[in-house]
Amino acid sequence: MAADLAADLTAQQLTEKHRPTLDRALEAIRTRDYWSPHPEHPKAYGENGTVSAADGKAAFDALLGSRLDLGQPGTDDWTGGEVSPFGPELGVEYPHADIDVLLPAMRAGMAAWREAGAETRALVCLEILARISARTHEFAHAVMHTSGQAFMMAFQAGGPHAQDRGLEAVAYAYEEQTRTPKTADWSKPQGKRDPLELRKTFTPVARGIALLIGCNTFPTWNGYSGLFASLATGNPVLVKPHPRAVLPLALTVKVAREVLAEAGFDPNLVALAAERPGEGIAKTLAVHPEIKIIDYTGSTAFGDWLETHARQAQVYTEKAGVNTVVIDSTGDYKGMLSNLAFSLSLYSGQMCTTPQNLLIPRDGITTDAGPRTYDEVVSDLAASVAGLLGDDARANALLGALVNPDVKARLEAAAGLGEVALASREVANPEFPDAVVRTPVIVKLDGSKPDDEAAYMSECFGPVSFAVAVDSTGDAVELLRRTVRDKGAMTVGAYTTSAETERALEEVCLEESAQLSLNLTGGVYVNQTAAFSDFHGSGGNPAANAALCDGAFVSNRFRVVEVRREA
Amino acid sequence: MAADLAADLTAQQLTEKHRPTLDRALEAIRTRDYWSPHPEHPKAYGENGTVSAADGKAAFDALLGSRLDLGQPGTDDWTGGEVSPFGPELGVEYPHADIDVLLPAMRAGMAAWREAGAETRALVCLEILARISARTHEFAHAVMHTSGQAFMMAFQAGGPHAQDRGLEAVAYAYEEQTRTPKTADWSKPQGKRDPLELRKTFTPVARGIALLIGCNTFPTWNGYSGLFASLATGNPVLVKPHPRAVLPLALTVKVAREVLAEAGFDPNLVALAAERPGEGIAKTLAVHPEIKIIDYTGSTAFGDWLETHARQAQVYTEKAGVNTVVIDSTGDYKGMLSNLAFSLSLYSGQMCTTPQNLLIPRDGITTDAGPRTYDEVVSDLAASVAGLLGDDARANALLGALVNPDVKARLEAAAGLGEVALASREVANPEFPDAVVRTPVIVKLDGSKPDDEAAYMSECFGPVSFAVAVDSTGDAVELLRRTVRDKGAMTVGAYTTSAETERALEEVCLEESAQLSLNLTGGVYVNQTAAFSDFHGSGGNPAANAALCDGAFVSNRFRVVEVRREA
Repeated sequence: MAADLAADLTAQQLTEKHRPTLDRALEAIRTRDYWSPHPEHPKAYGENGTVSAADGKAAFDALLGSRLDLGQPGTDDWTGGEVSPFGPELGVEYPHADIDVLLPAMRAGMAAWREAGAETRALVCLEILARISARTHEFAHAVMHTSGQAFMMAFQAGGPHAQDRGLEAVAYAYEEQTRTPKTADWSKPQGKRDPLELRKTFTPVARGIALLIGCNTFPTWNGYSGLFASLATGNPVLVKPHPRAVLPLALTVKVAREVLAEAGFDPNLVALAAERPGEGIAKTLAVHPEIKIIDYTGSTAFGDWLETHARQAQVYTEKAGVNTVVIDSTGDYKGMLSNLAFSLSLYSGQMCTTPQNLLIPRDGITTDAGPRTYDEVVSDLAASVAGLLGDDARANALLGALVNPDVKARLEAAAGLGEVALASREVANPEFPDAVVRTPVIVKLDGSKPDDEAAYMSECFGPVSFAVAVDSTGDAVELLRRTVRDKGAMTVGAYTTSAETERALEEVCLEESAQLSLNLTGGVYVNQTAAFSDFHGSGGNPAANAALCDGAFVSNRFRVVEVRREA
Repeated sequence: MAADLAADLTAQQLTEKHRPTLDRALEAIRTRDYWSPHPEHPKAYGENGTVSAADGKAAFDALLGSRLDLGQPGTDDWTGGEVSPFGPELGVEYPHADIDVLLPAMRAGMAAWREAGAETRALVCLEILARISARTHEFAHAVMHTSGQAFMMAFQAGGPHAQDRGLEAVAYAYEEQTRTPKTADWSKPQGKRDPLELRKTFTPVARGIALLIGCNTFPTWNGYSGLFASLATGNPVLVKPHPRAVLPLALTVKVAREVLAEAGFDPNLVALAAERPGEGIAKTLAVHPEIKIIDYTGSTAFGDWLETHARQAQVYTEKAGVNTVVIDSTGDYKGMLSNLAFSLSLYSGQMCTTPQNLLIPRDGITTDAGPRTYDEVVSDLAASVAGLLGDDARANALLGALVNPDVKARLEAAAGLGEVALASREVANPEFPDAVVRTPVIVKLDGSKPDDEAAYMSECFGPVSFAVAVDSTGDAVELLRRTVRDKGAMTVGAYTTSAETERALEEVCLEESAQLSLNLTGGVYVNQTAAFSDFHGSGGNPAANAALCDGAFVSNRFRVVEVRREA
C-alpha cells in the first residue's frame, strides 16, 4: 500500500475480505468447474451491504438528468446525450477530458501502484468488483437503458457475469505476475573456487496507460476483462465508452476511483474519456504515444484499423465473425429446436455469439422424431421461435430492444435476401412504448448460389438468421471451415448423432481455432459462456485476436524487470 | 505418440528419460535458482553416450565440403558458401527448398503432433536437446566457424547455454499449455431444478507454421528459445538461418527431424530454408500467409519491418539497443575495471548485451582507491583492457574473430569519432592466420556536445565503447533514461556506493523496462544472462519486443479450443 496508515482501506482489511475469493478464483481457472461469488438472482441483493432492487432502481433514477462528476483533472467540458433503446433520454452529463492534462495525471500514481505489488493490486481490484457487485441493480438499469437488453439479461450479463469476467482477469493477472518470485538467490558452482553468487529481484512493471474502448451492446461484460487485466498488472486505465453506452462504464470508473483513493492510491489510475457527439476520440487516443495497451470490442473494420495503426500498443480485439450451426442429425429434435429458438431470440440476436448461419443438408436430417426434410427443419424451427415469442410479455423479456437504427435497417433488408421462413414481427412494449422490439427473421438461402453466398458469408449483426441448404453434411463441414477461416467465428454449434461427423466437426474447430458446442438441447446455449470455465472466443480466427481469459490475455500487459547484484 | 508401437522411441522411454528433467526445469523457472542439465566443461563430454572432444572435432571435420542432406520434400537445389570468420571455407551444401512444396508438407504432421499433447511434445523436444547436448563439441566447432566466437565461448554459449534456453522455453510452453485442464465437468446449480451440466474438453492448438530467422553471431543461443517454444506448442518450425551461419542450425534441424521420426512423428515438422546468396527469402517467407509465428534476432531496421509488415504472424523480435553503464562510484575500483574490461572484450563486443556507453561524471568518481577523475577512470579502464588482452593467446581466446567486414569498418570509423583512449590493435592468430582479430577501441566523447551525441546515441555493434563525460551522476541517470526510451537497451550496468543513486537507477530501469546489473566486480558480467534465472531483454523497450523467456513468449504461440457437450 502506498500509505497504509493514512488509507481508509488497509492492506489487512483487503486481505481478510478478498484473499479467500482470489484463491477460489485461482482454483476455478485451473479446474474450470462452475463457480461465481456474484449472485445471479435479483432477489439475492439487499442484505449484507448489497443494494436492494428498489434502492438500486432509485439510485439509477437519481442519476437521470444529473451531472456525474468524477473529480478528474483536465475536465474542460461536460458531455452526454444517451437515449435509451427503450425510449427515454438519460440526460446524464459526463466530464469531457483535456487529454493533455488527463494522461500525465494518470501516470502520476503509477510508481506507487507498481510498488504495491501484484497481490495488493489484485485485492484492490476485488474491492472495486465487490462494490460494483453490491450495486448490481443500479448497474443493471444502466446496462438495460444503454444496450437495449431486457432487464433480466442486463442484470445477469451486465452484473454478475461481467463481474465474473473481471475477477477472472484479475486471477489470471495475479497468477501471471507471481510466476516469477520477487527475489532469488543464484549460486553457480565453480569447482574448487567459490561459487558465483547473485541476489536478484524481479518486479512486474506496467507497460503504460491502457485504453479500453467500450462497446454498445455489452459495456460491462465486454469491458471488464480488459479493464481489470490492465489495472491488476499495474497499468492506469483510460475508459473510452461507446457514446451510446457511457453510463455503466462511467459508474464503474467512479467506483474504481473511490476504492483507489480509499486504499491510498491515486484515483487517476482509472479515468473516463467521454466524448462529444461525432468527436471520434478513439482514433486519436489509439495512436497516442502514451497509450500502450488497447482493449476493443466492436466492428471488424475498426478492429483491423487498430491492429494496423496502433503499433505503439498491445492491441486486444474482439471483432465480428459469422457464427455457424451445423445441423446434421439429432437424438432430441424438440430439444434442439427449442434450444436454437432461444439462441436466436435472446437479445434479438445482438450478441457476437449468436448463430447466424444454420447449415442444413437439402436432403434433410435424421431425428428421433423421424427424418425431416430441409423445409421441415426450417419451418419447425420457425414455429419454435414463433412459439417461444408468441406471448408479448415473454417476447419483451427475451428480446429487449434493438440497440440502434442500423440493426433495424439490416433486419428489414434481410427479408429481401431470400425466401422468408419466419418473418420478424413488431412486439409492443407497454412499459416502454418507444422501444423498437422485433422478433428474429429466418431467411432461406441456397449454399451453392453465389448471390446467396454473398449474404451468408457476411456478418449480419442482429436478429437475422440464414437457413442455408447444403448438399451434404460433408459440405456443411467444409463451409464451416471456410467461414471460420475467412470470416472468423466467436461460436460454432453443431447437432449430430454420428461419431464420425462429430469427429470431423471437432477437427475443423481444432484446425481453425473455433469454440464448439455440441448437441445443446437443454438450458445451456451456444451464445453463452461462463467465466472461469469457458473461453470467450479463441483468439485464433479472424473474429478476435484474444480470448477471455487466458495467459496470453494478461502476460504481455506487463514486463518483468530484474535487478541483480553480487551477493 | 502418433504410432507408439511402430516408433523406435516410445512414450514410456521418453517419460523415463526426460520427465525428471522437465520437472526440474519447471522448478527452476519458478525459483530462478542456478540450474542446468548441460555440462559447461568440454572435458565433461565423451562418456554416458556423449561425444568426446576428439570425436566431436572429427565429426565437424567430416561435415566440411559435404552435402548435408536433410531428406526434406521440395528440395530443388543445393546451396552453401559459408566462410569461417577464422578463414576457412566450410564448403557445406544445404538443401534449397521449393517453399510451395515444403510448406504444405510441414503442415501434414500437425494433427498428430497436436494429438500427442503437451507432455509428449515437451519430452520429444527434450530428446532433441539431449542429442544436441551429446554432440556439443561438434556444434561448438560449427558455431565457432560461423560466428567467429573463440572455441570456449562457442562451446559454452553455443552449446550448454543455448540448450538451456531451449529447455527453458520448453518448460514455459509445457506449463502454459497445462494451465488449463484437458477436461472439466461443469455443474451449475439451478435451485430446485436439476443443475446444468456440461462436459468440456480443452485442447491447445498450434497457430500454424513458425519461422525462425537466425542470426550470425549466436545462431543457436538466440535461436533455440523460439524454435523450441514454437515446436513444443504444436507448431511446425521452418528454420531460416543467417546465410553466414547455416551449419549450427542445419545440424539442429537434422537432429530434430531424426528424433521426430523415431518418435513416430512427421520429420517435416522441422525443416530448413537455406537460401542462395542474395536471395533474401526472409522477406518473402515473413509475409507468407502460412507463416503464423516469427522469431527474429538482428537489426532494428528489419525487426521493425517485420513488426510492421508480417501482420498475419505473431512476431517476436530482438533488435538492437544502446547499452549503458553508469559509473558513479565504487567500493572495488580494481574489480570494477577488470569486470568492465572483460565485458568490453568478450567476443570483441559483438554481443547484443555488450556495454557501449560508459557514462562517467566529468568531475570524476569516488572509489575505494580514492577519487578518480574522468580522465583517470578512462585511462585506468584502457589499461585494464590492454592488460587483459596483452597476451595474444589469451586475447585470441577471449576475442574470437570479427564476424564480418561491417564490424571491422565500424571499428575503424569509431576511432575518428573522438579522442581515442585505447586504440584497437590487431592480434595475430597463429592457428588461423586469416582471422581478423581486434581488441576494443575506447573513444572519449562529451555528453553535452551534439556531434558526440549523434555517435553515442546510435548502436555501434562491435568492439567499440564510448566513455561519455557527463556533468553529474544525475545527468547520467537522465541520459540513461533517454537512451533506453529512445534507443532501447538489452542491458544496463551501474556502479555506485550511494543508496540514493542506486534507487534512482532502479527507478529508471523499472520505468523504462530495462534489466539492471549493479556493482558487478567478480566473475559475473553484465553481458551474460543465465537461462532459468535471468531474463534476456525485457520486451518493454525498443531493443526487443520479447524477453527470453517468460509467459508472454509462449502463451500466444497456441490457442485453446474448447468443445463442450451436455453431460
